[in-house]
Amino acid sequence: MSLEITAADLAARMAGLAGIGATPAGTNRLAWTTEALKLREWFADQAAELGRRCEIDPAGNLWAVPETEGPWWGVGSHLDSVRDGGIYDGPLGVVAGFEVAAKARVPIAVICLADEEGARYNTPTFGSRALVGRLDIAEVLERRDGDGTALREAMAAAGVDPEGLAQAPQWLGRLRGFLELHIDQTRELATRDDAAGVVSSLASRMRVEVDLRGRADHAGTTRRDERRDAMSAAARLIVDAEELAADTSLFVVTPTRVLVEPNALTTVAAHVRLWFDARVPEPARLDGWRAAVESRAGEIGARTGVTIEVRTASRSAGIAFDPGIRAALTAGAGVSAAEIVCFAGHDAGVLAERLPAGMIFVRNASGISHAPEEHVELSDAAVAATVLLRAVETLAR
Amino acid sequence: MSLEITAADLAARMAGLAGIGATPAGTNRLAWTTEALKLREWFADQAAELGRRCEIDPAGNLWAVPETEGPWWGVGSHLDSVRDGGIYDGPLGVVAGFEVAAKARVPIAVICLADEEGARYNTPTFGSRALVGRLDIAEVLERRDGDGTALREAMAAAGVDPEGLAQAPQWLGRLRGFLELHIDQTRELATRDDAAGVVSSLASRMRVEVDLRGRADHAGTTRRDERRDAMSAAARLIVDAEELAADTSLFVVTPTRVLVEPNALTTVAAHVRLWFDARVPEPARLDGWRAAVESRAGEIGARTGVTIEVRTASRSAGIAFDPGIRAALTAGAGVSAAEIVCFAGHDAGVLAERLPAGMIFVRNASGISHAPEEHVELSDAAVAATVLLRAVETLAR
Repeated sequence: MSLEITAADLAARMAGLAGIGATPAGTNRLAWTTEALKLREWFADQAAELGRRCEIDPAGNLWAVPETEGPWWGVGSHLDSVRDGGIYDGPLGVVAGFEVAAKARVPIAVICLADEEGARYNTPTFGSRALVGRLDIAEVLERRDGDGTALREAMAAAGVDPEGLAQAPQWLGRLRGFLELHIDQTRELATRDDAAGVVSSLASRMRVEVDLRGRADHAGTTRRDERRDAMSAAARLIVDAEELAADTSLFVVTPTRVLVEPNALTTVAAHVRLWFDARVPEPARLDGWRAAVESRAGEIGARTGVTIEVRTASRSAGIAFDPGIRAALTAGAGVSAAEIVCFAGHDAGVLAERLPAGMIFVRNASGISHAPEEHVELSDAAVAATVLLRAVETLAR
Repeated sequence: MSLEITAADLAARMAGLAGIGATPAGTNRLAWTTEALKLREWFADQAAELGRRCEIDPAGNLWAVPETEGPWWGVGSHLDSVRDGGIYDGPLGVVAGFEVAAKARVPIAVICLADEEGARYNTPTFGSRALVGRLDIAEVLERRDGDGTALREAMAAAGVDPEGLAQAPQWLGRLRGFLELHIDQTRELATRDDAAGVVSSLASRMRVEVDLRGRADHAGTTRRDERRDAMSAAARLIVDAEELAADTSLFVVTPTRVLVEPNALTTVAAHVRLWFDARVPEPARLDGWRAAVESRAGEIGARTGVTIEVRTASRSAGIAFDPGIRAALTAGAGVSAAEIVCFAGHDAGVLAERLPAGMIFVRNASGISHAPEEHVELSDAAVAATVLLRAVETLAR
């Protein structure tokens, strides 16, 4: 008999999450919060229903593990959201994980990775990076959120001992590999008219932080040629940075975050901090763009008297997923033969550094994510989850 | 005998203010704070030394008034600062006011106008606007500062009954006119090599608030042609707004304040609020610029899918100071024959709507103000204060 996961199966599990962190502006499920504790309760309930143990590893990742001895194949995603986000990015993969574990005839561990979005402490893929040992633990634990609470304190308040964080990689040996189902964050599958698609790789990404230092002059009385206007220089750099990526529609550059000082109504901006997020399939193009931005920054600085420093905050060359997993997934009915290059970061991409890993995406008609309008049809998610279930059965044998 | 005010006179009074609100980043003397109470004590001490009564009007303006019956000529400025500002913008005019009152052989009221900078509640020239009856009292009293404290509460905590604010205009009848000495906020006098200069008029000013509404998409996965990036649109509008004012060096446009939501490292900006401060001698040019900015906003909106609304937050056509006062000031030794058009707002400009008023500026070698580097030579200030003293004696006779 062929195994199948239905839309109704998924809907029943999703219903248990409804309302957690819901606000008029969207879903707010940030790491180490009251909402995160409610999500943990839901996870534990799902595990208990399956007769599974629920374990919390030193990074706060949640594990619903089989009674049988490991290592097992892991299936899952994350339950946290961005600020004012949607309800599918993350939870859909954990819900699918429980359905797969319930129906698979092989032992499956369901995993909810901690703080994938990193919205509270700027710590995206926190849980998976802790598992592969790629967190600067001393540094991140001292980070503070908007309320001044250190990550160290927030973790402790959520019952996870921050001093144990360095032990997280020991848990990775319990996994043979990891599969993640996730909402498509583009219209790619919708355009192709496919319910589900296998991800070949994650695109290269770079986060660039620009520091612009001008002078806090009076906005009325300082003549144009005597001012050093950091915001004016920042605006020119944003326009230039986007133009420098205009040669291919697959190159996206976003000025995501801007902090202005003193940000007062009658004062020239003295200091602007500006972050760009840049993504393109080929890492060499990223590096070329980065060099061109720095050169434009030098020109703008010379023209405006603003001191501009361009720093690479992070860079990922991208990663190709395991060929065996991709083949097992692509064999499924309802999945597109054409694989997808993904422009987002994902826990599966981090874990792929140390384990066989793979991803399957679910069609998203609008392409919107990280916003309340984010939506999938659960019938599409059921197709993807069924493909995942059959693939993991093949892989586990 | 010719009256004179010396640098030593001014230095002695300035010394009493030293240290109030001093921080490593600059001087912080915001309205209705502990620092404001210390400034009030200093003012009361200066008044007591002169044998004057110190009165607080319903707007929190401080008055050191003669024993003789009014109306008197008023001389003064303000004691509050912007955040991380300097020590001369404002206090120099109050210090000069006390010297003038001490030496003049006519009755002079020294006045410290409340909250001229408006840094805490975005209420610039608060005290003078209250006196001329040009405050939307119900609206401003409900404004909140960064800590959530309403202006109503802050005033009450500083011992000024907010319910009395509407009575402030009754105090204006006590004045025959008002003179203000102030630091030049440009290099104009320095370039001319003049210690002091008379202000003919205040330039026209406009504050424009732009509301840009895009969509909070994922910064990696949303294709360029599918995003509505409010920050990208804002950057283009800033560049355009400055270019539209490029036809004369006397036209200054500043993107002073920028608020971005969600301002998160992996999300396209959904909402940007942006403020421009624009100043030019001729008000008609301001209106032309405003219309052109709105038209560019329409083009950018059509191209980017961002909804852009341009709103005039405030507009002042500028004001010409009293010809009799200007003549009396220009007659003084050491003052330039060429008058100055001022690009800043001042209490004297507000009071000029209802009273004869005038201003004299003191040379500023760097032109810097609203910053810790703000500086004048007190020998220059003494020249200006002496001119003011002699002018007010002439005017009062």
